[in-house]
Parts: sequence; structure tokens; C-alpha cells
Amino acid sequence: MSEVQPDAGPDDEGSFTRELDRLGRTLPLPDEAAQLAALERQLHLTKPTGALGRLEDLSVWLAGVQGRCPPSPITRPRVVVFAGDHGVARSGVSAYPPEVTAQMVRNFVAGGAGVNVLARLVGASVRVVDMSVDADLSDLPGVSDHKVRRSTGDISVGPAMTREEAEQSVRAGMAIADEEVDAGADLLVAGDMGIGNTTSAATLVALLTDAEVATVVGRGTGIDDRAWMRKCAAVRDATRRGRTRLADMVDVLAEVAGPDIAAISGFLLQAAARRTPVLLDGVVVGSAALVAHRLGYRSRQWWLAGHRSTEPAHTRALERLDLEPLVDFGLRLGEGTGALVALPVLQAAAATLAEMATFDEAGVSDREETPGPSA
Amino acid sequence: MSEVQPDAGPDDEGSFTRELDRLGRTLPLPDEAAQLAALERQLHLTKPTGALGRLEDLSVWLAGVQGRCPPSPITRPRVVVFAGDHGVARSGVSAYPPEVTAQMVRNFVAGGAGVNVLARLVGASVRVVDMSVDADLSDLPGVSDHKVRRSTGDISVGPAMTREEAEQSVRAGMAIADEEVDAGADLLVAGDMGIGNTTSAATLVALLTDAEVATVVGRGTGIDDRAWMRKCAAVRDATRRGRTRLADMVDVLAEVAGPDIAAISGFLLQAAARRTPVLLDGVVVGSAALVAHRLGYRSRQWWLAGHRSTEPAHTRALERLDLEPLVDFGLRLGEGTGALVALPVLQAAAATLAEMATFDEAGVSDREETPGPSA
Repeated sequence: MSEVQPDAGPDDEGSFTRELDRLGRTLPLPDEAAQLAALERQLHLTKPTGALGRLEDLSVWLAGVQGRCPPSPITRPRVVVFAGDHGVARSGVSAYPPEVTAQMVRNFVAGGAGVNVLARLVGASVRVVDMSVDADLSDLPGVSDHKVRRSTGDISVGPAMTREEAEQSVRAGMAIADEEVDAGADLLVAGDMGIGNTTSAATLVALLTDAEVATVVGRGTGIDDRAWMRKCAAVRDATRRGRTRLADMVDVLAEVAGPDIAAISGFLLQAAARRTPVLLDGVVVGSAALVAHRLGYRSRQWWLAGHRSTEPAHTRALERLDLEPLVDFGLRLGEGTGALVALPVLQAAAATLAEMATFDEAGVSDREETPGPSA
Repeated sequence: MSEVQPDAGPDDEGSFTRELDRLGRTLPLPDEAAQLAALERQLHLTKPTGALGRLEDLSVWLAGVQGRCPPSPITRPRVVVFAGDHGVARSGVSAYPPEVTAQMVRNFVAGGAGVNVLARLVGASVRVVDMSVDADLSDLPGVSDHKVRRSTGDISVGPAMTREEAEQSVRAGMAIADEEVDAGADLLVAGDMGIGNTTSAATLVALLTDAEVATVVGRGTGIDDRAWMRKCAAVRDATRRGRTRLADMVDVLAEVAGPDIAAISGFLLQAAARRTPVLLDGVVVGSAALVAHRLGYRSRQWWLAGHRSTEPAHTRALERLDLEPLVDFGLRLGEGTGALVALPVLQAAAATLAEMATFDEAGVSDREETPGPSA
């Protein structure tokens, strides 16, 4: 495992921070004309006005992010699972041993994990990226191409990584988003895998929403009361240090996150820059979304919240982002699974707007009191 | 349109009522051994225990109703849309003219309605049954095979149909369930289409849950305040008459429902008798479910609530049935659309239980504090 290095000099910092700031300020917005066309088309479909409820809102959003009405079906959804170990796991904050992270990466590659099963069901493909797994996974083709380091520093006592490593991680996430958009993905899902990662996520959420530590720390993989108290202590200590770095999001990521979460932040930001819709997953992705949102407020317009995790920090993050999750099934698995369970809802929204007959086409009478254009 | 006839004699009544009572008392229960096997298998899958939340509960339910673990994928879901007009629609309780019912039946057959689009998306097929549409649809092959009458009596002033017609309708619903199960359906969805049908549904829910009329009457297809008041008055008057018939569910159906809702009641009951899972849709199907549940309490074990409609009577019915809907998107279209939006959740539950690797298979370490059988 690489040593945690002292921060790079202020010149370096300023340069990447300015670059991110420029990117954040120039993010595009979804296409308003396509949204208006979708709103208009909904009025003519053979159903009472508004009878498809939230599916209608989703269809309008999808038309906006695709820049076309009716929206195309989502045929190439892509999941990228960002894997990384967390030094804090050695402090007894998880119910599972750290070696599970590497074992699960192999399970992803073999196709046996929850994310693989759910991706197959909805026609999505899965990519696994080893950002900072504490194992040598170089026998898995391509998986470790963006690897920044093995595990992180224990955030309960010091920084997760150096400023330089944080920059490298954010850049890696941006590059991965570019690769996937260039390869034809029409919707992106970020997933996470890493024993200890909800401790970093809770810390980020506490920092970026100014929340009391105990209100955002959850049971993660299913820890008992003692482990929960240790986790609270770790988050409290990390939050104290992180609070002094809030002026610069890259510094915050270096202090309390890790290469995996930093990469997801860059991934979410770049997805918006590339006008590509994202279905958010659980608390780890949610914490990275808070970072990306700080870097560029418009990024949020390109995201939907897939589900609500049982982790309290996730609800806190969604509230701050003003995102209403599509489904709420008490999931707490990560990997992108919550987003994938929600994806069919978005596909249903796209299909109904694109494929339903209009009153005119079907020869169906419109409502009586307020005749529509077809009456 | 056929006239509303006086009730048949008490001998006839007793006979069908006794038949239904016998059926209700002898309904099967889901397979407990398969449920236990599913619970056990969930413990060994490569995820923290319970991390798939409600998907795990659903997988156990599905194993029970299929009688096998792991459950099979749902590959032949079948939607049956029960169409019927309601005489009460002439009292100004709907935003759409009554002829829309027949026009929408043609839209279903042509494949242009919401239910068609959503069914295609999830691999379901759609059948339309004209139980009591106020039009001649005999040019549509098979659609009117079970037709009982054209429209119903206006329930705000008198019975919807005769006792004999109610019996015929319940029997038709049971026969249709048999036909579909025999044809290989592995999950059934009942849908509804009929201008004015939420007035009958609200009346049934008010009667069977003893609810205040104003708390169960909704906006249906999107009515204004005046129409809502007329609808409340119609439901109040129908409820008064229906209350005197509560001793016999077939009498209740004859008094305030109609051939469509009566048929759905029989369909839901017979699905349980045939050990076939059902995904319930909105308020019209929910009102029929209350009837079927009165006829046989175990029927509920074979049903899942797909979604929560915006109609207040639907929430009331689900509470009475102790069913928690899978999704809540503010839908109020009927047709089976709410159930179809929820179907992928059930498919996800089946796939995760059947296809995820176990800790042993994947060589992943189980949790530390409480070692599982693979540790």
C-alpha cells in the first residue's frame, strides 16, 4: 500500500481546482424545447391527462436529457462499479473482512453478483474499475487500468490519500465517463464496492450537508451497536479534519473519501458535461453526487435518484440534492443495484410517451369539459 | 341494452353462494417448504444478509406461490382487461363520454393503449374481455364471448344488474382465469376499462371497509368539483342500498358493481384456487379484490399489490387487505398499467434469488461476527 503523502503545493491545487470550476460553470442544461414537446405530446395520448403520474414527468425529463421527443428507448445502459478499500475498515466499522472487496471484484467479473443479475435483466452491461482495492487484481484484464493506490489511509486518524491522488482519481472518473459515452452508453449508472466505504460516504454527507454525525451514520453491511459506535467515532474525527478543507472539494476528497468516491464524483460531473443521463444508486454514489453538485450545480439536472437506501446519510444527500427516489425497497447493497431496480420505470416512461396512440390515431374521444386539440 | 331484472328466487341464490363459500373455504395456501428454502438460500448469496431488502421478501413470496425454490423467471405474464360501461356515467360523474369505453377496447385490440405499451416492455400479453360495453363489438374476434349485457343500471337510483347476471359475471371471471392458467400464464394481472367504473369501485370500497363516502371518492379520470359532488351523491345513494345486501357478496355485486367488477372478483378468486400469483392493479381491481377476499380469505396470499393509485378508495382497500404496494407513481389509468410498472420488481426478486452466486461458489468470505455455514 502506498504511503499517504503531504499535500502538493498551492500552485498545483489551484490549477486543477480552477479547471473543475470552469467545467462546473459551463455545464450544459437539458433541452427545453424537447421537454416542451414532451409535455405537449402527453396531452394527446389516449389516457386521461396526467393519468400516468410520475411516468409523465420522467418522460419529460428523458426528452430533455436526450434532446429529442419522443425519447429513444434506453438500449445501452452501462454500469460502472468503482471498487476501493478503505483503511478505516481496520478500525472495526464493518461486518465483513476487508478481503471481501477484492473477492467481490472477482465475483463481478465472473457475473455472479447482484449487480450482474439485475443488469442482465434490464439489458445493461457492467464494467468493474479497481480504483484502490488492497489486492493485486492485475490478472483481471483492464480492471486495474485506473488504479491509484492500494486501500487508503485510515480517515479516523489522517487523510485518505494525497491531494495528487485525489486529482488523479477525479480525472480517472472523468476519463471513464468519456470512454463510456464514446462507446455509446445512453444512460450511466455508477456503483460502488468497498468494505468501509459507507464510513467515508457518511463523512462526506455530514460535511456537505452540515449534519450531526449520529444522524447520518447507518448500519452499512449490518453492523452491531458496538461497531456502529466505532463508526460514529471515526466519522466524527474525520469530519473534524474535513471541515477545515471545505473550501476545495478535491482537498475534501483527499482528506475523508478515497480514490473510488473521488472517481465517482468526476464520473458524475463529466456525465453531465457529456449530456448523458445518470441513474444514481445508494449512499456512496449519493455522497459523490454531493461533491459533483458542489463542483457544478447543473450536474443535478442530468441525474435521477434510483432508489432510497436504508442508510440515513442517503436520505440526507437526496434531500440536499432535491431528488425524489423512484423506488424504496430497503436496499443497502450498493454496486449499482438500486439504480438497476429503478431503471425499468424510466424505460416505461420512455415507451409510453413514444409508443402510445394519440386520441386522433385511435379514434378515441377526448374529455368533454375541456376539449383537446383532437376534439 | 338489457333491462335490470328483479332478483332470482332464494333457491338459486343459496346455491351459487354455497358454491362460492365452499370454494373460499378450500383455497390452497402457498408452499411453506419452498418459502423456507428461499429464506435459507438468501443467507448464502454474495451480499450482506438482508441487503436486498424487500426484494428478498418478494423472492420468498414467489417461491411460495410457485411451490419451488429458486423460483422460475416470470416468462408468461398475462393481462386481462375487463371492459364494461356503467349507467351511472350518464349522471355526469366522469370527465369523458361513455363511448370512450368501446373506443378504448378497439385501442387495446390495436395495441395502442398504455397497457399494450407497458405489456410489450415487460414481456406480457394482453387479452381484452367485453363484459358489458354499451356497444356492439362482435367484429372483434373473441372479445365479447363472455358479454353479459350492455352497460348497467344507474347505481345512483337502482341495481346495476340482476342477481342472475352477477352470478353469470363471476362465473365468467372464474372461467377466464381457468382459461389463462390452462394456457400457461405464470402470473395474472387484471385490468379495467370503463367510463364510470371508479364510482362503482368507490361504492364497493365504502361498503366493504365501512368508510365515509367522501373519504373514498376520488377524481377518477380527472373530474372537477361539481362532478366530484355528483359522484359523492351517487356513491352515497348506492352505498345505502348496498348496505342492506352485505350478507351475500353476489347480491352486493348485483346492486352496486357491474359485470366487469364481478368478473374480476371471480377471476381473482379462481387464480388463488389455481395456485397462480396475481399482481393487483388500481382501485377497480382493488374493489374486486375486497369482494374476493370476503369470499375466501386465503386468496390474498396469492396476490401482490403492484402500485398505489391516486384514488383514495384504493389506499383504503389496500389497508384493509394489508397489502403494501410495490411502487407509488401517482398513476390513475387502470387497464393493468400500475401492475405492469411494478412487474419488473418481481422479476428482479426472482432473478436475484435464482442467479446470484453463493459465498461458497464465488469464494467470498462471509461476515466475521456471525459466521455463516460457508465460513
